[in-house]
Amino acid sequence: MLTSIATVCLSGGLVEKLHACAAAGFDGVEIMDADLIAAYESPEEIRALCDRLGLTIDMFQPMRDIEGVSDDVFAENLRRAEAKFDIMQRLGTDLVLVCSNVATASVDDDAVAAAQLGLLADAAAARGIRIAYEALAWGRYVDDYRHAWRLVELADRPNLGVCLDSFHILSRGHDPAAIEEIPAEKIFFLQLADAPRLDMDVLSWSRHHRLFPGEGDFDLTGFLAHVQRAGYTGPLSLEVFNDTFRQTDVTRTAAHARRSLSWLADRTARERGTWADRLPEPQRAQGIDFVEIGGGDLDAVDRLLDRLGFAFRGRHRTKPVRLWTAGDARIILNEQLRAERPRLSAFGLVVADAASAAARADALGAPAVYRRSYAGEQELPAVASPDGTEVYWNDAPDGWLAEFEGGRGVESFGGRVDHINVAYPWQDFDEAVLFMTSAVGLDAEPPADVPGPQGLVRSQVMRSRDGIVRLPMNLAPPTAPMPSRHIAIRTGDVIGVARAARARGLDFLPVPDNYYDDLAARFALDPELLATLRELDLLYDRDDAGEFIHFYTPTIGDVFLEIVERRGGYDGYGALNAPVRLAAQRRAGVGA
Amino acid sequence: MLTSIATVCLSGGLVEKLHACAAAGFDGVEIMDADLIAAYESPEEIRALCDRLGLTIDMFQPMRDIEGVSDDVFAENLRRAEAKFDIMQRLGTDLVLVCSNVATASVDDDAVAAAQLGLLADAAAARGIRIAYEALAWGRYVDDYRHAWRLVELADRPNLGVCLDSFHILSRGHDPAAIEEIPAEKIFFLQLADAPRLDMDVLSWSRHHRLFPGEGDFDLTGFLAHVQRAGYTGPLSLEVFNDTFRQTDVTRTAAHARRSLSWLADRTARERGTWADRLPEPQRAQGIDFVEIGGGDLDAVDRLLDRLGFAFRGRHRTKPVRLWTAGDARIILNEQLRAERPRLSAFGLVVADAASAAARADALGAPAVYRRSYAGEQELPAVASPDGTEVYWNDAPDGWLAEFEGGRGVESFGGRVDHINVAYPWQDFDEAVLFMTSAVGLDAEPPADVPGPQGLVRSQVMRSRDGIVRLPMNLAPPTAPMPSRHIAIRTGDVIGVARAARARGLDFLPVPDNYYDDLAARFALDPELLATLRELDLLYDRDDAGEFIHFYTPTIGDVFLEIVERRGGYDGYGALNAPVRLAAQRRAGVGA
Repeated sequence: MLTSIATVCLSGGLVEKLHACAAAGFDGVEIMDADLIAAYESPEEIRALCDRLGLTIDMFQPMRDIEGVSDDVFAENLRRAEAKFDIMQRLGTDLVLVCSNVATASVDDDAVAAAQLGLLADAAAARGIRIAYEALAWGRYVDDYRHAWRLVELADRPNLGVCLDSFHILSRGHDPAAIEEIPAEKIFFLQLADAPRLDMDVLSWSRHHRLFPGEGDFDLTGFLAHVQRAGYTGPLSLEVFNDTFRQTDVTRTAAHARRSLSWLADRTARERGTWADRLPEPQRAQGIDFVEIGGGDLDAVDRLLDRLGFAFRGRHRTKPVRLWTAGDARIILNEQLRAERPRLSAFGLVVADAASAAARADALGAPAVYRRSYAGEQELPAVASPDGTEVYWNDAPDGWLAEFEGGRGVESFGGRVDHINVAYPWQDFDEAVLFMTSAVGLDAEPPADVPGPQGLVRSQVMRSRDGIVRLPMNLAPPTAPMPSRHIAIRTGDVIGVARAARARGLDFLPVPDNYYDDLAARFALDPELLATLRELDLLYDRDDAGEFIHFYTPTIGDVFLEIVERRGGYDGYGALNAPVRLAAQRRAGVGA
Repeated sequence: MLTSIATVCLSGGLVEKLHACAAAGFDGVEIMDADLIAAYESPEEIRALCDRLGLTIDMFQPMRDIEGVSDDVFAENLRRAEAKFDIMQRLGTDLVLVCSNVATASVDDDAVAAAQLGLLADAAAARGIRIAYEALAWGRYVDDYRHAWRLVELADRPNLGVCLDSFHILSRGHDPAAIEEIPAEKIFFLQLADAPRLDMDVLSWSRHHRLFPGEGDFDLTGFLAHVQRAGYTGPLSLEVFNDTFRQTDVTRTAAHARRSLSWLADRTARERGTWADRLPEPQRAQGIDFVEIGGGDLDAVDRLLDRLGFAFRGRHRTKPVRLWTAGDARIILNEQLRAERPRLSAFGLVVADAASAAARADALGAPAVYRRSYAGEQELPAVASPDGTEVYWNDAPDGWLAEFEGGRGVESFGGRVDHINVAYPWQDFDEAVLFMTSAVGLDAEPPADVPGPQGLVRSQVMRSRDGIVRLPMNLAPPTAPMPSRHIAIRTGDVIGVARAARARGLDFLPVPDNYYDDLAARFALDPELLATLRELDLLYDRDDAGEFIHFYTPTIGDVFLEIVERRGGYDGYGALNAPVRLAAQRRAGVGA
């Protein structure tokens, strides 16, 4: 697989962008005209830098508003083109993108457009330059790749072919199957972009909201499969206009972009049953091995877990690490993170082949995590997710339990980890979605907005298909503090757990009385249940499938716990209660 | 005029919101259900707080998905409603908003919907409660205010009327003229929101992009005129769902919101030729009196102006302030701002009645500026704009010139201030637009996005109709540094000014060579002109009306100068050159 990326995807100056692309492992780049124009380096210097960095300049782009015009306008367009061909020869690239005419087209006649494309190709041929013609989704007369291909066929020049862009095709709902009818040698270039399904004008959608493959709603594996079956063997190139990636760190975004292509090629190969470009097998999570809270002083967390009814299972033989359990829910307290406030620092997944899971994450560019271990201790491979939370894989689940000694507590309830709630600043959100999809094997559910007291919090649930791993991710608004993370424990009797915890002196996040008045209005609840909810600061939700009862502990450092009970087939997270929780936490002095 | 605001417009908890609304001078509030639910204070406490703050609770909102349903669903809806009526009685408010059914409507029959609204009204009547029925733009069967009014007429209950919301009416392009056919006593409430024209689904548009009056594209004065002519005398209430205002400072946003109503009522009165609610007369700017650069040490700016060809006109008699001029362009250097980096600190406008201009700004809540002056010195009234830049008004233009003594320089060119470019962080942008519209009397032109190396910069030109005052405002992306501000001086011979300045040793912002290659490709430029542009680091643009040639000085502190020449009828700002300028400034170590 050859990989490429348009320089317009990244922030900074052209030289920075090229360094970042090379560092991320791209084979080539598409150089955007505007990036070159704003650079002090000459085309010859850029060419030499790309040579040194091992980057091919796969395409120069774009040439706009060429075809479908009157003769005098076309003559002027040819003059413009010749000037750009000069630049291309200095850059040492032989392929130029020509987008279908948006602004100046005045002749809606395929014969005229094809003739003009032919003349442009002839002018290019004299310089050894090839033309990749692309239908923009908002082209004046040509807005469909099949139409662009008809024009290319009609013009019939060896150095004229098409450029296919997944956004322009899928955003319009055009069937990509006809790509297979285009001869491989006439597909000169392939641009890939994902996007969320948005109901807005396609130009704004394209210019502001494109995403890297795996982060949006397009069926890019199906799209790529068509292109591969057509016989295309050129670069897979990313062209992603996105307001966020235009301003995030260039090196990090380039790595993120490169990961999206590895994911896409792997997924497409698996769906097609082909072997090239496969990464190590994705490992389905069979369970959550543990969740870890790290920090310099976790005494308050010990106290919290004790009052909740967790059992203390002892200290680690060689490290300042403690284990608490409630049934299958295992929480590790790690005081090796010396100077830090308590936070959700890691979680572990039970898989069939931990080494393969780690190898896959490594192939996707996730940084490996090192932790010192001693002879006889179980070693778990791990990587860091984009916010630093570490992800461990374990294929010998109970192996490390024996490393903890001196426990004495008795569990007062059985539970399991229901979900792990993490949070990302807005600029790292899409990267996190791709990481969780590609390296951890979770799927993205449709996102929702939750009104918090300091702005809308976007909630994006990532989960394994069977629901064993559920990872709601919160996106913080730019000016608001990051939401705290939390661990939700599922039990069959949340009322009993709450009552016992209260008897042991646990503080609850207090719920306003008005909430219960509203609950009574919304649902015709049994008065006794309502009284119990009110007494114990429990929150409630219901849908057609079942009921959800839950409560929150106060926040310690940057983490808190939630205890949940799912009755019937309720599969949500009590989203309607989130604004109440956020307001209560803000009042308690915690970040929104 | 009675003013009100929905609590959902603001950030924070309900009590904070109420305090901010009172401080901003609102007469009342609409309390959003969700705000009360998340509050620990009981409805009785909220009622008492509003009493103490002098706020009426004008409406409780909203009750959703009531009408157009089967009998059993309606029975359950009535039960829900009764529970909310309880809350309303505790709050002491008698008006509730009922939005047209979005989710559960299953009976598309006006007779059924009207009958159910009638029954709801009867239940409310028993408590002394009135129902304001509103057509949501995305209601299932009722999405037009005229339809909502037909249902209200059909139901025919004294305590059932309509609520009109400008967004739901104008977003759908419905003609608001028919409002005048609704009897005044049946218009129970009026909600006002502006919005930019966006081509997207109306639900997302409404939930994320509403603006305060004067900040968007809706004809709200025309809308309000219809409502006033219908005889409505109730509160003008703001209901603005906006992702930004949900997170900005509650006190500042409430003041900003209140200003928008004063502006709207004033503008409507002027358009209708009525007298109530008028503010002091807006003052058309006849010219730019001066632009001021403030800072602790402005020596570098003196040097810059000298090399540009400005004349030194002397020091102020009593203050550490200096004056430089080039024709009508007057730049004041103010070293009273001791510890600060050089920045654009103020500008002055020539008007017919300075006191009236200041009184108007004061009535709009703009903070007055105090500057010490001595006997015999001209006093100019001034206010601070949202970013702190001071705006002065002068109706005796040359009055203060004589306060400067000891000048000796000779102007080497004649000029005038072409435009003043300011910058705002994204969260203050709409407030700034409203300030410039309402207090400074400028109009907003359609905004444009300029790709900078650290993200898209939104450019919003504010100008007086005659083009005498032009104020392009840049909106910085959240993570990028604030763009520097600048003063653009217009001359009839930019090439001569540039050449002379270079001869005097002025540094120019260097323009990449690649830019000139692109210029040659874009325009069939005279080779001699192209060579001159390249030699002097001049930028060029052209449109159907004329040509634009300009150059930039290096940035000092937070400010730089631009010299521009407009040939023919060119009326823009060289937007295509902005990315090159931004990249060059970033390379020179200046904020994006």
